[in-house]
Amino acid sequence: MTDETNASDACVVGVDFGTLSGRAVVVRVRDGAELGTAVHEYRHGVVDRVLPVTGEALPPEWALQVPADYLDVLRFAVPQAVEAAGVGAKQVIGIGTDFTACTMVPVTVDGTPLCELPEYERNPHAYVKLWRHHAAQPQADRINDLARQRKEPWLPRYGGLISSEWEFAKGLQVLEEAPEVYDAMARWVEAADWIIWQLTGVYTRNACTAGYKGILQDGAYPGEEFLAELNPKFATFVKDKLDHPLSALGDKAGTLTTKAAELTGLPEGIAVAVGNVDAHVTAPAAQAVEPGQMVAIMGTSTCHVMSGDVLREVPGMCGVVDGGIIKGLWGYEAGQSGVGDIFAWFVNNQVPPAYHDEACERGISVHELLSELAATQAVGEHGLVALDWHSGNRSVLVDHELSGVVLGQTLATKAEDVYRALLEATAFGTRVIVDAFTDAGVPVTELVIAGGLTKNTLLMQIYSDVTDLPLSVIGSAQGPALGSAIHAAVAAGAYEDVRAAAKAMGSVRRNVFTPIPDNVDAYERLFLEYQELHDHFGRGGNDVMRRLRKLRRDALEGKN
Amino acid sequence: MTDETNASDACVVGVDFGTLSGRAVVVRVRDGAELGTAVHEYRHGVVDRVLPVTGEALPPEWALQVPADYLDVLRFAVPQAVEAAGVGAKQVIGIGTDFTACTMVPVTVDGTPLCELPEYERNPHAYVKLWRHHAAQPQADRINDLARQRKEPWLPRYGGLISSEWEFAKGLQVLEEAPEVYDAMARWVEAADWIIWQLTGVYTRNACTAGYKGILQDGAYPGEEFLAELNPKFATFVKDKLDHPLSALGDKAGTLTTKAAELTGLPEGIAVAVGNVDAHVTAPAAQAVEPGQMVAIMGTSTCHVMSGDVLREVPGMCGVVDGGIIKGLWGYEAGQSGVGDIFAWFVNNQVPPAYHDEACERGISVHELLSELAATQAVGEHGLVALDWHSGNRSVLVDHELSGVVLGQTLATKAEDVYRALLEATAFGTRVIVDAFTDAGVPVTELVIAGGLTKNTLLMQIYSDVTDLPLSVIGSAQGPALGSAIHAAVAAGAYEDVRAAAKAMGSVRRNVFTPIPDNVDAYERLFLEYQELHDHFGRGGNDVMRRLRKLRRDALEGKN
Repeated sequence: MTDETNASDACVVGVDFGTLSGRAVVVRVRDGAELGTAVHEYRHGVVDRVLPVTGEALPPEWALQVPADYLDVLRFAVPQAVEAAGVGAKQVIGIGTDFTACTMVPVTVDGTPLCELPEYERNPHAYVKLWRHHAAQPQADRINDLARQRKEPWLPRYGGLISSEWEFAKGLQVLEEAPEVYDAMARWVEAADWIIWQLTGVYTRNACTAGYKGILQDGAYPGEEFLAELNPKFATFVKDKLDHPLSALGDKAGTLTTKAAELTGLPEGIAVAVGNVDAHVTAPAAQAVEPGQMVAIMGTSTCHVMSGDVLREVPGMCGVVDGGIIKGLWGYEAGQSGVGDIFAWFVNNQVPPAYHDEACERGISVHELLSELAATQAVGEHGLVALDWHSGNRSVLVDHELSGVVLGQTLATKAEDVYRALLEATAFGTRVIVDAFTDAGVPVTELVIAGGLTKNTLLMQIYSDVTDLPLSVIGSAQGPALGSAIHAAVAAGAYEDVRAAAKAMGSVRRNVFTPIPDNVDAYERLFLEYQELHDHFGRGGNDVMRRLRKLRRDALEGKN
Repeated sequence: MTDETNASDACVVGVDFGTLSGRAVVVRVRDGAELGTAVHEYRHGVVDRVLPVTGEALPPEWALQVPADYLDVLRFAVPQAVEAAGVGAKQVIGIGTDFTACTMVPVTVDGTPLCELPEYERNPHAYVKLWRHHAAQPQADRINDLARQRKEPWLPRYGGLISSEWEFAKGLQVLEEAPEVYDAMARWVEAADWIIWQLTGVYTRNACTAGYKGILQDGAYPGEEFLAELNPKFATFVKDKLDHPLSALGDKAGTLTTKAAELTGLPEGIAVAVGNVDAHVTAPAAQAVEPGQMVAIMGTSTCHVMSGDVLREVPGMCGVVDGGIIKGLWGYEAGQSGVGDIFAWFVNNQVPPAYHDEACERGISVHELLSELAATQAVGEHGLVALDWHSGNRSVLVDHELSGVVLGQTLATKAEDVYRALLEATAFGTRVIVDAFTDAGVPVTELVIAGGLTKNTLLMQIYSDVTDLPLSVIGSAQGPALGSAIHAAVAAGAYEDVRAAAKAMGSVRRNVFTPIPDNVDAYERLFLEYQELHDHFGRGGNDVMRRLRKLRRDALEGKN
């Protein structure tokens, strides 16, 4: 029995590398209990104003990171989490990680980031290009124009649009703006894989980012002819910088090196899972690994991931990738570019003092106060409809030039009215995505919500009513880290596959919110209004939003 | 010489009856100098919740007043103004008044308001129906439907729509909801004329309200056949309650009675000018009595008045009336239902604490702070466009179901951005009106601004840039009262006509703001965007605003 008890105490570590910090969590293998956690904030955060070494100002739309900050998460957060868990490091049998994506590191042949070499530390292109680095938009535009013109077969796999955030646009930007960096980089590596390289000493390329961000479809990348037409020097980009055998999610990438064991305090030689992405790794943490179970990870933005047993081209989806979430199924991804950050913007910019005072007095947040006030309303009572495009639209319209709308204000309109209209607008945005999947033959049967917004019960009920779907809520507050731990357990051989591990270690509360029939009907009317505005402003009925952006740019240029 | 000095010290009193209070001003006849002023607030204000005597709750959209409150203005404000002026009451040679319109008093044959009779004091219909009483909308709808159907020739004189605020709709409401009050009222009298009745002891009907609010065109009211079709008992409404010889603006209505002299402290027998309306009487106060000079009285809403030497049918105007502003010219009226009240709503409902704190600290208003911040922007820099329909649209669209829009928000949008967009939206609203007049053959060549908003120099410059017109600003802070005093001086025979009196007594600063060419060009682009949204949401492209109102009503009903 002693052996069994020991075995039942086996743990894994999951590490979630976010935008501003990394979180480690120690999870018990047999039941997924989260025994301890620790967070470490990146020393340099997001580098979007000045370069650390030189103090040089960065152009707009740039967003870099410093790779050493990631190692500090391993150095500090992992041992702290183990300590907090009250377990011995020896009980840890594996480690798994997930990362923001597409976040790219230019490295030498041994994986050293170029920014760590004295000759490149003053060159911004030698640093990590964070997912939200948007300065490669001109390159992305050219990639899309050419792909459309050549009818590249991979384009519909990405909803018809390659993002400026992804490997090719960012890589082409390096080539064209810093050819010396481009030449010096032996590989152009996803941070998700770079961190695994640091842990195992070997480079692996995970199927998830290779597919979603690297345009790998049906075993092939965009061809040399295509790349040459973008830029003759870009012709061999795949061969020179990108191509590498794929590793499936849940597989073992390797074992923990002596050096990494020293860094983390974990046992040398334990299993290290293949790299993964924060959103995708959340699906098993929420036990949502079957077709039809769409996971919405709701935070500042929302990412939707769902597995399917068929390949379909869904308009506006971010991508569909073979084994992109679960080995053996097609992984679908979609997204809304602004959700929680719209609510935060509203609270910071459009809520008058009396609400702040009352919230403060009652010891609740302004969000809670507005939600409480808005919750007393019947559907449609505020007389408003809004478009949730304050950060553009990366769903079915895939247009970053779109912007927000609030329609229907009267002199009686209160802050809680607009707040509720904005909550609803994001729900309508999710509904558009759900409808697009269902219409394309990949029906959504359940919404599983993860992320920080799950605690807003008004918001959750609205999502259930608007989509007419039952809402399940992930049981863990740290879904990605738990998902990474699940992958670690599989890599360590504790479970046969991710499905089995998810069943044992993941956690979800099913049908926490169910549609209220009256609300469903009323929201159907309101959704039709949303949809008409959505199509009018998003599909060419009136391109006013694009023109306003241009007018704004012209105005700012004229001022300079 | 003594006689001359005495004569040059002759004064007149102008009294402006507003929505919440009345203001008296003592003005020197020879030069229009405002020597003293006093304000008296109505004891009952606007009666829109409960009836004074009974405490009975009023239905929504009701707005009543108590006529005795008007007499208190004569009783208190007039002598106070004379005292403040430091002149002797004997120097006063005439009194003129202006009133809100259409504000209606049901009276007995001697002018006693029915609400002052014990048998009616408990009946809400026996009280004054203030201009903003909107509960006669069903009656107005029927009047408009029938007039359109019968192609009544007077309909285009009112931009194609008779308002629920006017004499016929309100009269029909009394008939249908309180036939006993309807039967008891010997006359249905404009408050503008009722107050003259109190001063002179005789009933006169001024040409201005008879034309704008009483549908008197080319010497005739709507015919009995038309009225009978609305309601058989309404057939003789004109003959029974309304018809009366007209009095021209600037004419003498009569002389001050003994009783009124006692009330006001003014000399018995002095001239009393014919009743007038607050907006229209402002034109001579601003020396804007020639064709092409459009006066915009900008406050919570904006009223536009302009004289013309030709009769034209301008889409959406409130009305065109022979002698409606100046005897011998066609008086045109148009309006925007929400202007200053939109800005006030924004400041009260959508501006975060930091702005309030800073304004407070600096001892300025939040309006001033937002204007100061917005003034640093180039045209179009905020990337927004708004529709100024928070109170509906009573301009060319004449649709109270319309509502406000703000389009173009991003996460970088600040309060001053939206504030500026709202200022601009109201300027675009004025531009639509100016264009409608010019297109109809009544060109606008100068905008003369009166009212409380003239002190916002950013707003004024925007209006000049958006309309590409020079902006003049009235010299007086109490335009209507000054205009009434001008009419008093004419009635007293001190000047030959209102034109001559306006030249001597009115005051205006010409071309205080002139268009800035670069801004004019940029605003032309932005105005095209406004216009496209205006037509889309206002002319049937998308009736979402009407549907949202319905959804709101349904929601509120469902809750009850």
